[in-house]
Formats: sequence, structure tokens, C-alpha cells
Amino acid sequence: MCPSPDGKIHPATRQGPIGVGVIGYGYWGPNLARNFADCPDTDLIAIADLKENLAAIARKRHPGSIITTSPKELIENPKVDAVIIATPVSTHHALAMQALKAGKHVLVTKPLASSTEQCLELIEEAAKRKLILSVDHTFVYTGAVRKIHELIAKGELGDIYYYDSVRVNLGLFQHDVNVVWDLAVHDLSIMDFVLSKKPVAVSATGISHVPGKPENTAYLTLFFDDKLIGHVHANWLSPVKLRQTLIAGSKKMIVYDDLEPSEKIKIYDKGITLNGDAESVYKMLVGYRAGDMWAPQIDITEALKVEAKHFAACVTGKEKPLTPGEAGLRTIQLLEAATRSMQNRGQPVELPAVHARS
Amino acid sequence: MCPSPDGKIHPATRQGPIGVGVIGYGYWGPNLARNFADCPDTDLIAIADLKENLAAIARKRHPGSIITTSPKELIENPKVDAVIIATPVSTHHALAMQALKAGKHVLVTKPLASSTEQCLELIEEAAKRKLILSVDHTFVYTGAVRKIHELIAKGELGDIYYYDSVRVNLGLFQHDVNVVWDLAVHDLSIMDFVLSKKPVAVSATGISHVPGKPENTAYLTLFFDDKLIGHVHANWLSPVKLRQTLIAGSKKMIVYDDLEPSEKIKIYDKGITLNGDAESVYKMLVGYRAGDMWAPQIDITEALKVEAKHFAACVTGKEKPLTPGEAGLRTIQLLEAATRSMQNRGQPVELPAVHARS
Amino acid sequence: MCPSPDGKIHPATRQGPIGVGVIGYGYWGPNLARNFADCPDTDLIAIADLKENLAAIARKRHPGSIITTSPKELIENPKVDAVIIATPVSTHHALAMQALKAGKHVLVTKPLASSTEQCLELIEEAAKRKLILSVDHTFVYTGAVRKIHELIAKGELGDIYYYDSVRVNLGLFQHDVNVVWDLAVHDLSIMDFVLSKKPVAVSATGISHVPGKPENTAYLTLFFDDKLIGHVHANWLSPVKLRQTLIAGSKKMIVYDDLEPSEKIKIYDKGITLNGDAESVYKMLVGYRAGDMWAPQIDITEALKVEAKHFAACVTGKEKPLTPGEAGLRTIQLLEAATRSMQNRGQPVELPAVHARS
Amino acid sequence: MCPSPDGKIHPATRQGPIGVGVIGYGYWGPNLARNFADCPDTDLIAIADLKENLAAIARKRHPGSIITTSPKELIENPKVDAVIIATPVSTHHALAMQALKAGKHVLVTKPLASSTEQCLELIEEAAKRKLILSVDHTFVYTGAVRKIHELIAKGELGDIYYYDSVRVNLGLFQHDVNVVWDLAVHDLSIMDFVLSKKPVAVSATGISHVPGKPENTAYLTLFFDDKLIGHVHANWLSPVKLRQTLIAGSKKMIVYDDLEPSEKIKIYDKGITLNGDAESVYKMLVGYRAGDMWAPQIDITEALKVEAKHFAACVTGKEKPLTPGEAGLRTIQLLEAATRSMQNRGQPVELPAVHARS
Repeated sequence: MCPSPDGKIHPATRQGPIGVGVIGYGYWGPNLARNFADCPDTDLIAIADLKENLAAIARKRHPGSIITTSPKELIENPKVDAVIIATPVSTHHALAMQALKAGKHVLVTKPLASSTEQCLELIEEAAKRKLILSVDHTFVYTGAVRKIHELIAKGELGDIYYYDSVRVNLGLFQHDVNVVWDLAVHDLSIMDFVLSKKPVAVSATGISHVPGKPENTAYLTLFFDDKLIGHVHANWLSPVKLRQTLIAGSKKMIVYDDLEPSEKIKIYDKGITLNGDAESVYKMLVGYRAGDMWAPQIDITEALKVEAKHFAACVTGKEKPLTPGEAGLRTIQLLEAATRSMQNRGQPVELPAVHARS
Repeated sequence: MCPSPDGKIHPATRQGPIGVGVIGYGYWGPNLARNFADCPDTDLIAIADLKENLAAIARKRHPGSIITTSPKELIENPKVDAVIIATPVSTHHALAMQALKAGKHVLVTKPLASSTEQCLELIEEAAKRKLILSVDHTFVYTGAVRKIHELIAKGELGDIYYYDSVRVNLGLFQHDVNVVWDLAVHDLSIMDFVLSKKPVAVSATGISHVPGKPENTAYLTLFFDDKLIGHVHANWLSPVKLRQTLIAGSKKMIVYDDLEPSEKIKIYDKGITLNGDAESVYKMLVGYRAGDMWAPQIDITEALKVEAKHFAACVTGKEKPLTPGEAGLRTIQLLEAATRSMQNRGQPVELPAVHARS
Repeated sequence: MCPSPDGKIHPATRQGPIGVGVIGYGYWGPNLARNFADCPDTDLIAIADLKENLAAIARKRHPGSIITTSPKELIENPKVDAVIIATPVSTHHALAMQALKAGKHVLVTKPLASSTEQCLELIEEAAKRKLILSVDHTFVYTGAVRKIHELIAKGELGDIYYYDSVRVNLGLFQHDVNVVWDLAVHDLSIMDFVLSKKPVAVSATGISHVPGKPENTAYLTLFFDDKLIGHVHANWLSPVKLRQTLIAGSKKMIVYDDLEPSEKIKIYDKGITLNGDAESVYKMLVGYRAGDMWAPQIDITEALKVEAKHFAACVTGKEKPLTPGEAGLRTIQLLEAATRSMQNRGQPVELPAVHARS
Repeated sequence: MCPSPDGKIHPATRQGPIGVGVIGYGYWGPNLARNFADCPDTDLIAIADLKENLAAIARKRHPGSIITTSPKELIENPKVDAVIIATPVSTHHALAMQALKAGKHVLVTKPLASSTEQCLELIEEAAKRKLILSVDHTFVYTGAVRKIHELIAKGELGDIYYYDSVRVNLGLFQHDVNVVWDLAVHDLSIMDFVLSKKPVAVSATGISHVPGKPENTAYLTLFFDDKLIGHVHANWLSPVKLRQTLIAGSKKMIVYDDLEPSEKIKIYDKGITLNGDAESVYKMLVGYRAGDMWAPQIDITEALKVEAKHFAACVTGKEKPLTPGEAGLRTIQLLEAATRSMQNRGQPVELPAVHARS
């Protein structure tokens, strides 16, 4: 199926599954390819990887798809309606721009691009051509994060006091981006989704233990214009893998551990209560409330399965992207600010109030 | 037994157990009292607490000791050779000074005092009178921390890359000090002991969620003059209690979880190896090494039991304090710097190179 | 205070705390002594242990109590109203009988005695003299077990399908009783309390790995006259300590882990649903229901503190024993049957329908 | 490629990958199909499932293979050298026999067949035709079980004292076999592999909570002719999934938890030591040894990947089956004995000394 001359698939006229092509068959690409192949609303038309050995693996797994070492060939294939980009960050902008200019919808793995400027260009190009531009903020599509979003949105936690995440493991050291761009980006995209608030400043510290390489251990504090504080510990040099998030609210608190096979989210009916009595140095203003813990059942569908279906629905105009280019942009503004703060030992960096060109 | 006129117990002449008095029978005092009562080298002569209800509890538990609501009476009791101070921080300096001036050896719960200045005064007074001044950095006396110290000292971990600690729980909110002074102080004292290095700067962020109260959630980064970085997350407002420390070295890495009933320390033969090959953007300089994990058996004697025995040995001149006033001073310099940085959203604060008056 | 000639403390006339004496200051005795000393309703009059070194430890800890190596002296002390027996099982009957005959109320650590016959004699003697005879089934006094009892009694779990417990650790190998008598007795006493049902038969298997010693590894199945089944794995030879109980009901299921610092009880809204459709070999009658998990807040008061207060209230006639001699008897009938079955490789042994002499 | 008239692929003449067909595309079949498709030594020629909806799923996933609803068609396909059977147990014997008679090598999912008799027939038929008959005892191919096998074989654990396994979860209730046949079979096959000993008797207890259905909760004790004892708790009605195995030896002990993401095996330098001193009732013969814990790095290759490669190597005569029909037979003898014992409330059933027709 070909897109019409205005570069858009017209929901009314299109029939059958969306044709997708996946560029990049390294670490994450195989997962995207598998899910878009399985999705009833999409056809995996083609896979491209510059490396012949990865292309060979793709060929054995997806005998029904075109396998190529030329991204250009994939982009130009008229059966490809949407291009999924799963390559190193430094190549995102060029490939995505190429795809958009060819009239293709685009889904890019995180982070969206290498700079705010690049993000703005992609957003503009997609808007001009009325094409979908989405960023693969995978966690937003998990049952756990959707449940947290729902609980916060319904006010179950009360005012949010802090969001604290530890995301550490051994490797994979990236050569072109630091650990904040690689790991903390997940937390920033989750916060962007569940808190619905924009930070006003960031202070970050970190270090590289490998000569000439970007920081592999980093700490990031986000300031907001109220009592909320955010913090992320991102680390490629940890003996154990941890994915541990604490979210405290005035009413309830959450522990979210993505590595728990079940009970990924635990909601604690715990907190502090304030009272006005403070007669002596031994007397506290603060009371403690300890109640039950509750682990809601959550949807365990693979996030990429949900995301593939959602992306197809966006392409056919039935849904609006949960993680549009603008979400990618907001995240990258934070990553840039954090990287700058890190170079000055935590010196805080203020964030711009506006984030897109008018 | 009375101290001699120069305010010192002469090792040669003293006989029988050291007489101790404990001031403060609130949260921590009972543990100190119990351990000094059980210790074969000490006699629990007296306990003082201003509050009659706490004194009553002490009376039922220690029917053989003098229980009083007057710290002064306790300090002046000639049978009391050493005074243990377990009161709010703001009272440490005055009580310790009073005890030292009365010729008594002193052990103070952490943090040693409210300021660098106060610490220096106490250290000077003790030195002048040749009395023991020790600070109860309890964790230094645990089997786990002593094992970590030993492993690092022997070079088993190689160069230390980072020390990261999460120390969070619900409560107890302090009214006179922030959470860094209350919780992070433990980590700073452990680092002081196991790393044998002094930080050069600190960046801290934090927030108070209770109007008019000190910060209850804080993050602290310590910079050193090499590739080492330290970080502490201290929090009184967490739904769960965590005591989780990661220590990464160039050779091995440690996970230290103080809440584990056994296997508090796990040593991972994991890490990165560096090589010079970097031909393309896909090729990394970094290799990964994953080997066995090993949990050494550690001494599980209650820390205060070890500490009580050690303190008695210091008083009788047989040992030198592991946690002398100077350790308390170094810790408080960090606490002061962190508090200042926190008021400026992570703006780094440099630490003085020297730390005691000549 | 002296008991009246009929060997009973008359609730109406007695004043002040109950005088108690503890016999046995080895493993468990110190805990009992400490709690009866702390209890506002009791006075710890005396402690007896045959071994002088244990008596010496008791003397340092309880300077206000009489410490003796003569149980007889303790029993005959007129200030002792109640005798707590914490000695090896083989001595329970003789000491308890002696105490009862001296008109003293009695609390015996588990198991109550060495045989059904001995239990019956103690129950009769206590009944005849109108004295309290209680067995220290400690777990019945924990917040966790009381909560399980409450949940089952209220029907929250529906029909109970099984009760499965794993109670294993390294040591302490007993010389006079097998591991069933030492460890499984806890589970049998908990089941006796929470299930309110009597098993009809038992099958047990086990083995001794130490020549000439009783079984150190044992498995015990309890059959009831309905769909309920009970099972206990008791083991002195395990590398790790486990206290893990699963309780499945038709409506809800419980995981009870006594070693969890908090969340000892987790209630799962999970189970099976049955329907009548069974058309083909692939079609199941069984559906699965997976819902939320819920961990109720439970009372964390030390069990012996609750038990000491309750025992005092029984002695003064204000409460009725939760764990009377009869509970001890029922447990020992099971232990005897299990031991017999174990000698015949699991050959089932039926249990008597009646369990006390009329 | 066609097998030669004697029904065997001649190692010398065969070239290229083995052609395999998978029968059954329900729960386990897709995993087998995926692994045989990925394996460089095999070609996935065909998949058969009686149900058209499952065949449709197979068609989307494996566009390069023949998908059919006729097992017969698959078996008769001349390109199929080996048939993998992943259907309900009751159909194993007929399908496997059909495949063998067509000259195909066979791999059957566990348990091999429904009875000892059926196993013997399959073993004979395969032997007669010189074909490979293997049973998919998957765990034998995991890095964890191979490491345990190695440790025991090298004598690192000393004499084995017990093997205890808990294998419980919610569902899937089988209609044609009880939980022992479905879950305990895994433990029996692991024990068969790592202990290299044959039990002499079995005692089992269990219950069905669903009218007219086989037992869903079962306990199984295996007796050996020495101090070794084995035990399995198998359960379809558990609120949580547990895969917990304890293996105690005279020198060391193992905890094997298959659900641990890393550190699946922990080796404890713990145990008992025996001495001859037994002067009084308080003195034990038994001493305790507590040392370090050690978690060896283990191979985390997917078991089925290892198994697929090994099966291909067996077919081409390069390796001998680790889990031949005889292993399936030994396991089924135990399952039959356990089922019989369970019907008599744990009454022990002796096992035949010999297990194959001469």
C-alpha cells in the first residue's frame, strides 16, 4: 500500500495492515521486529541493518520479510508505510528525517535525537507533513506505569512528594552518550507521563571511570515549582541489576520494582500526619500513619505489543500518540541540562519554561 | 572507683570494671545501657533522663543501678568513670563538656555535636585532660563494616569507583536536625572508616515536606580528588525501610544490605575490563567480566557489645578509639557543607583540606 | 503473696502482681524471664537453672530476683504463684507435676510433655486443684497468627483447602526428641488454633543423618475428614532458615512468612473457579481467578509480651487460656502418631476421635 | 532428506541440517518450534496441531514451514527426519510409535508416556529400528542443573543427605494426569540426573479439590537404600510460584531457586560435624559449621537451545542422549508408584529393582 501524495495514509481509504520497516537489528530492533510481525494490524515488510551478520539473523527469524543492509532501500519501499528506527542515537535524526521526507510515519527508539534542536526539526517536519512522529518510551506502555499514572491521576496518592528511581546494572557502556541519556531517560519519560508536571531546574553529578568515555555513574535531581522533588540514580557499573522506584504522596506511597515477576507495584497506606502541637524539644509536629499494603493486579502484556498496536492505531488516525515527539523533546531538554550540570559538579541548571517553537 | 586528680584512670592502678553512667533513656539510650550493663568490663552505675516516665522504665529494667532525672548528679557521681551521652544533638556539646570538665571519659551518640566549632572544643578539652572522647558511630563496630574495611584495605576490590548508599524509612522526623544529620551521618561515618579518604567537595539536594521543619528527603554527592564518587540517599518519608549499599571497585564489587538476616555482604567478581580497540561506532572499549558471587561469613555480634568492650579498653589505655572525636569532626564538616549545598539546589561546596586546629 | 490452702489464687482477694519463677535459663528461658520481668502484672521472683554458669548470667541480668540452682527451692518459695518451665522436654512432666502439687499455676514450654499419658496426668492434676495449666505455644500469641485466625474465622478464605508449612534451619539438634517434636510442634499448634479442626490420620516420613539420634529431617501430612490437607516440612539440617506457610482457601489464599520484617501475611485474591463444561480433552473444568494482593497491618508486639500478660490474666481469673493443657495434649497426640508413621515409611496412622479422659 | 531403509540417518552420508516436525502447538510446542527453527543444525520443516486456531498462529510465526492440522501428514513428510511431540500425555504413545514406525527419530515432552508398559514399548521400538528416542526433561539442559550435577559428581557436597523441592503455582490444572505427573516429574527427572541413584520406595500423599479431577496438591517422599531422602511438594493451587530446592550434603549444601534471575545456585559451606562427646543431657553430639556462601556463575543459555543442538547431535550420531527413553521410564515408574501410594494415604510402595525388559 502506498501513502497518498501528501505523505499521509488516509484513515478512510486505507485497508489491511500497516506496512512497517525496522532499521537496526542490534539490541532492541529484534524485539520491535518480533512485535510488529506478531501484531494483527501491521505487516513486517522489511528489516535493514548495515551489518551483514545481523541481517543474516533477521533473515532466519523473518523468512517472509525483505532483509537488507540498506536503510535507504527500506525507506523507499512503497509497501513500507511506517519506519521504526532502532539504531544508535547519533543516527536517529538523519534516518528519521529521511523517512519523514519520504512520507513515512516514524517511531524512534529513545532518546528521540541527540539535541533539542534536532527534536524540534523532526517535530516540525512531521507536523508539516501530517505524519505520526512517536518516540519509543517503552515503559509508558507497561501495565505497571499505566497503573501508576491512573492512581496519581485519580488523586489516590494525594500531593506527590517525591519520585525516586534507581536504575543500575552492569553495562552496556555506550560510546556516544552518557548513562543519563541511556538509562535515566527511561525515568524521565515515565515521570513526564505520570507526574504531568515540568521540572524547573536540574542538578546532576556523575563520573566516568573509563578514560575518554562519557559518564557511567550519575545522579540527577529534578526540582519542581512546588514540594515535589525527583531523583534518578543511573549506573552502568553496578554488580546487580536494580529497577527500584519510590513514589511518596501525602496520602499513599508506592514502591514500583520492575524486576518483580508479579506485584510490581505495592501501594502503602503509610505516611505522615501533621499536627500543631510542639510544646517541647522532644515533641514532634509529625505523626506516622501505618496501614495495609496493597498490590493491585496489573496488565502483564508485553509493552511493545501494546505499543505496536497503539502506533498502528495512531497511523490510521484512531488514536493520538501517548509518546509523541514533544515527549521526546521534553526528555532531551532534561538530558541536556543534566549533562551540563554534571560538568559543574551539581551546579543547578534552570530549564526553559517553553519547549517548542511557536 | 575514682579517677585520679588529673582526670584520667591510670591503667596501671585501676582495678575492676569501669563505672559508666548513661544520660538519655529515649530511643537509643536503652540499648547503650543494656550493653554496658552486660559488658564484663563495665558496671552500669547510673542512668539519667529528664523525663520521669523514661526513668521509671529504666528503674524496672536496671534495679541495680541509680536512676535519676539529674544528669548533673550522674556526672558528679564519683563511681562514674565514663559518661555515655544519648540525648538530642543540640545538648551533646554542653553535656559532654560538663562531663569532660568533671574528669570523665565520654562517649557521645552520633552526630558528635551541632557544629565543627563545638567538635573542636570537645576534642581540645579531652586532649588537654587526657580523657577519651569517642563518638558512637555504631556501624563501624558491626561485623559487616569491619569486613568491608578489611577487604578494601587488603586491596581486594582494587581502586574504589563509587560508594552508593540508600538509607530510607518512615520516620522519625527530627525537629532540630535534617535527615542528613540523622541518617546520612551513618554512611559518612562508614565511608570515613572504610575508604580512608577525605572528600574535596560536596553537592547536596533535598526538600522538606513539613512546613517549618528541616529537610526530610536528601541526596548527597561526595567528590574526591580521584575517580571515586560517593552518594547517599537519606529519607524519613519512605514506605519501606532500605539499607542498601553498593561499592564498586576496579576488581570486585560489593552489595551490602544491612537488613539481610545473613549474607549482609555479597562480593561480586564482576566488573569492566578496558581494551584499546575502537574501530567503529559499534565497537566498545569496554569489556564485561562476570564471575562468581561470594558471601563471606561475618561476625554477628551486636555492634554495641563490641563497642562497649572497645570503649572500656580505650579507657584503660589498652586500645585506641576507632571512632575518636576527630572522626566525629570530619563527619560534621561534611554535614555542614551538605546542608549549605542543599540550600542552593546542589551548588557544590568545597571542603577544607585541614580539619583540626594545630 | 501466698496461695490459699486450696492451691488457688482467689481473684477476689489477690492484690498486686503475680509472683513468677522461671525454671531453665538456657535457650528460651531468658526470653520468658525478660518478658515476665517487664510485664506490669507480674513480678519475676526467682530463676532456677541446674547449671551454675547459666545461673550466673541470670544473676547479672536480673539483680532483683532470687537466682538458684535448685528448682525445688524456686517452687517452694511462697512468693512464687506461678512456675514457668523452660527445661528439656523429658523433665517437663516431673517439674510441672511438682509445681502443681505445690499449688502453683504452671506454664510449660512446648511440647507440653513427652507423651499423651503425661499430658492427661497434668491436665487432671491442674483441674483437680483448679490451677491454670498452659502451654507456651508462642506463635498463637503473634499478631500474624491471630490475624490468620481472625480471617479464617470470619470466612474470608472460604473453605480451607490446605495448610502447608516449611520450618527449616541449621540446628539445634535435640538429643531427646526428633525434629517433629521440636519444630513441627509449632505448626501443629498454629493449625490447632487457626483451623479449629482435628485431623483424622497422619502420614509421616523422615530420616536421621546422625547415628543414634532422632530424625532431623521430617515430612508430615495431616488428613482431615474433608478436603483439607495439612503438611509440614521440619528440618534441622537446612542451609537457610525458612518459615514459609501457604494457606489456600476456596475464596482467598495466604502466604505467611514469619521472617519478613513487615508484611508477614499476604492475602491473595486468587484461586480457581469451577464450571460444568467439559466437552473435550483440551477443555478444563477449572478457571483461574487472579486479583489483587493485600498485606494487612499486623500487631508486632513481641508474642511473649502478649502471652505473659494473658497468662497473668488467666491466673487472676480474668481470661481463659488460649493454649490450655488440652491444646498441648492434641498436639502431642499428633507428634506420637507422626513418630510412629515415620518408623514405617509413611504408613498412615489414625488418630483417636476422643482425646481426654472423661 | 530421506532416512535410509533401515530407518536411520547414517552419520556418514547425511548432509545439511536435520529436518524436524513439531506436533502440538499449544503451551510448550511454540518454544520447541522456535528453538528448532533457530538451531543452526536443524530445519523446522513442519508444525502440526489439530486445532486450526493454533495452526494459524504457527503460520504467522513460521511462514517458511508447512503448517498442518494433520500429524499424519507431518510424520509422513520425507523431509522430516525427526518428530517432536508436544501434545497431551495420553497421546504420546500413539504418536511416538507412529513416528518411530515411519523411521523417524523422536523427542517427546515429559512425561514420556502414560505407563511403564508404554515406555517399554517405545524403548524397544526405537532400539529395534536404531532410532533416537529422547524425552524432553528440559531442566537437565539448564546451566543450573548441569552445575549441580557437576558439583555432586565431583564430590563437593560429600554424601547427599536429602533433596527437597517445592514446585508450586496456580494452574494449569490438567484433566488427564495429576500434579505429580505434571510438576513433580521435573524434580524426579532432575534427581535422576544429578543423584545417579535409584529410589527403593516411595510414599505419597495428596488431594483433589476439584470433584472428579486428579490430585492437584501432592507430597512425595522418595526412600533410597542409604541415608538419602527425597521430597517433592507439587501443587497447582498455590497463590505464589515457587521453584525452591534444598540439597544437603555432608560437606556442603545447595539452595537452588530457578526463579532467581541470577544466582540460581547458592552453595553454603555449612553443615554439622559429629563428635563423640555426650556426657549429659545438655551436651550434644552435633556441632555446627557455618562458613561462606558462594554463588557460581552459571551458563544462562536457554535450556531448549542446548537441548535442540544436543538432540541434533544425537541424531547424527555425535552424542548420546542425556535423557533417553530409559530416563523417561525410570521417572514414570516413580509416578505410578506415587499415584498408588497417594490412593492409600501415604502407604509406602516399593519400587522394582530392575526397570527394563531384558
